[in-house]
Amino acid sequence: MNWRTLYSRRIESMGHSDVVEMLKLAERPEVISFAGGLPDPETFLLEETRDALEEIFAQRGQAVLGYGPTPGIAPLRAWLAEHMTHLGRPSTVEECLVTTGGIAALDLICKVLLDPGDVVIVGEPAYVAALQVMRSYQGRFAGVPLDDEGMQPDALKSVLEAARLKSSHPKFIYLVPSFQNPSGVTISGARRERIIEIALHYGVPIIEDAAYRALRFEGQAPPLFASLEPRNVIHINTLSKVFNPGVRLGWVTAPQELVETLTLAKQGQDQCSTTIGQYLAFAFASKGLIKRQTSAAVEIYRRKRDAMLDALQRYFPPGARWTRPQGGFYSWVTLPEGIDTEALLPRAIEEGSVAYAPGPAFFHNRTGKEHMRLCYSYVSATQIGEGIRRLGHLLSEFQVATE
Amino acid sequence: MNWRTLYSRRIESMGHSDVVEMLKLAERPEVISFAGGLPDPETFLLEETRDALEEIFAQRGQAVLGYGPTPGIAPLRAWLAEHMTHLGRPSTVEECLVTTGGIAALDLICKVLLDPGDVVIVGEPAYVAALQVMRSYQGRFAGVPLDDEGMQPDALKSVLEAARLKSSHPKFIYLVPSFQNPSGVTISGARRERIIEIALHYGVPIIEDAAYRALRFEGQAPPLFASLEPRNVIHINTLSKVFNPGVRLGWVTAPQELVETLTLAKQGQDQCSTTIGQYLAFAFASKGLIKRQTSAAVEIYRRKRDAMLDALQRYFPPGARWTRPQGGFYSWVTLPEGIDTEALLPRAIEEGSVAYAPGPAFFHNRTGKEHMRLCYSYVSATQIGEGIRRLGHLLSEFQVATE
Repeated sequence: MNWRTLYSRRIESMGHSDVVEMLKLAERPEVISFAGGLPDPETFLLEETRDALEEIFAQRGQAVLGYGPTPGIAPLRAWLAEHMTHLGRPSTVEECLVTTGGIAALDLICKVLLDPGDVVIVGEPAYVAALQVMRSYQGRFAGVPLDDEGMQPDALKSVLEAARLKSSHPKFIYLVPSFQNPSGVTISGARRERIIEIALHYGVPIIEDAAYRALRFEGQAPPLFASLEPRNVIHINTLSKVFNPGVRLGWVTAPQELVETLTLAKQGQDQCSTTIGQYLAFAFASKGLIKRQTSAAVEIYRRKRDAMLDALQRYFPPGARWTRPQGGFYSWVTLPEGIDTEALLPRAIEEGSVAYAPGPAFFHNRTGKEHMRLCYSYVSATQIGEGIRRLGHLLSEFQVATE
Repeated sequence: MNWRTLYSRRIESMGHSDVVEMLKLAERPEVISFAGGLPDPETFLLEETRDALEEIFAQRGQAVLGYGPTPGIAPLRAWLAEHMTHLGRPSTVEECLVTTGGIAALDLICKVLLDPGDVVIVGEPAYVAALQVMRSYQGRFAGVPLDDEGMQPDALKSVLEAARLKSSHPKFIYLVPSFQNPSGVTISGARRERIIEIALHYGVPIIEDAAYRALRFEGQAPPLFASLEPRNVIHINTLSKVFNPGVRLGWVTAPQELVETLTLAKQGQDQCSTTIGQYLAFAFASKGLIKRQTSAAVEIYRRKRDAMLDALQRYFPPGARWTRPQGGFYSWVTLPEGIDTEALLPRAIEEGSVAYAPGPAFFHNRTGKEHMRLCYSYVSATQIGEGIRRLGHLLSEFQVATE
């Protein structure tokens, strides 16, 4: 069988995966890798996980090892509704759907909303895996540039106006409003209101991916898009940054009618998310352990962010710029003209034993070779200093060589 | 926002879900439900699960709570390769992909192979959730009738020949060869060879879903389709019938090139399956606990199958026929003409406090109202007798009333 001749058209648009290649780099032990986007395993509460499981097994018995309801177990959905209400988006249980992580949530949303050729609007640089999901539904992209305050409202308006003139109706606007992956930037409160106003004017819903929101190091959190406009915003979230990611849990909060259709789609995705994992997450939530894990993680990641910003200041060549994230996992670097981060990467790995994620992975049309994403969450503070030193050295050499 | 106006075309074809409604019925405590397809929680090894987790936490630490590789953790993939080799399909690690259950495996395969309008061939009656996955990729169905030996080769040949004359190229043939859901029947060895011969002649690959294969009560197992023709068969399997289903794990074994493309698709489905769950499954496999759980489950399900066949014999009206499964969860009943199982269901629940899955859910064109699927795996042997008595009584009443 020549399988390739049987492939669907969507496989062409998915093409080669940058994520897989990036994660492969992280595997060689001598490489200091800023390429992945992994949490620090030190933040996981192993003892508490063990104890909570023990308690669940004793209290609930064998049933927790079986299948659960497609939209999630009742106590976890109830907690999510309460949690979302607390975050400023009053929610019912029926508006909350448990998913097998954040990407599985986006997969369901795209399954329900996207036909091949539909236009989706993404802030760029954009989250690689989200681009990959949308490609798998043959979405066409319209990119809106970000600056230090996140998506630029005027640029969004231009894109929507251009679409209107072509009688095109973009299906949604996808945003990671806080500590965006890959840029680390956060959309300011004023901009959030302006973006919603524009989206409503053009009748386009917003998908808010709040994966990193809870990991704020300093400053005040702007309101959720979902709290400003609950009816027209689909809120995606994940427990993977504040609880064990290897359990695979996330959620969607959206109007009930949409959640019911997403539940229908979930039957054809994975039928239900892990039952024992949901009981564990609920135990963590109700014992205050998610809060505790989050607070401890914020301390760890803040120190690492500081280590990276210090090292960048010290070792990166003049003319390089980078974002100063107030939370999350990433800083986004813009290098002086003439440096191609894709071309440099093999040398960085081989000569410098250091890795990063090159810019073009984060643009739908693969521009952005002057950028790189640096992830500070996984490597130790010491390794951050050493890795950035090596990378800075290589960049300076490269700059001299090309001058 | 009127979300409905934004829905993709695939949502129309997915329509209303029978599975969700069926599972809702099972929730009312007074109803004896043969509707769902759930394993008996008594088969789950709670103590052993707790002990294995304890050991994993002690030996491997926090890393097991983090993300894992997209295609699965190395030791579990290695065990799957060995297991498949043992089952007669010599396999490498690279030919085995860990998935978040059997449906997630089929979702990935459809993502890679199906364009809207592509024809898929299914044995009918067919597995409801599989139909739902294929609908979500806008597949068109060609049904091939089953008899007591499974899919009828001559009927398959006619369907393929008719497709050829229309220059249509069906993308695949989907089969549940052993203890099929919903019919309980198994394709005989001779038929397997004949089906493969026909499929090869027409150049159409086979998807073999072996979900129930391990639950054989008696008789000899025919060879896997994947062992007879490894290059042209995609083997889907699940750990949900022989290990804790609430952990959500399944797998695909297929030629390496295809597994690599499925891995790419998995990045846009859930990125990776549960890491801690995979370590747990591997511990179960290597300690012989999957074998032990399977043997004990076979004993339990055999007794329940016997209880159901006895009760059917005793209580069902003359003219009713049913399959005698040699394994798995289901018997498939064909009722005398004039009985409409969809129309009868609300009365069965309200008057008889008994539920079943009506036939039309299992046909792509919703024919088959004279059939019902009875699942004996979840309810107790005593309940089976009582439930079938109630149902038989209702059927006799209904028959008298319509004569």
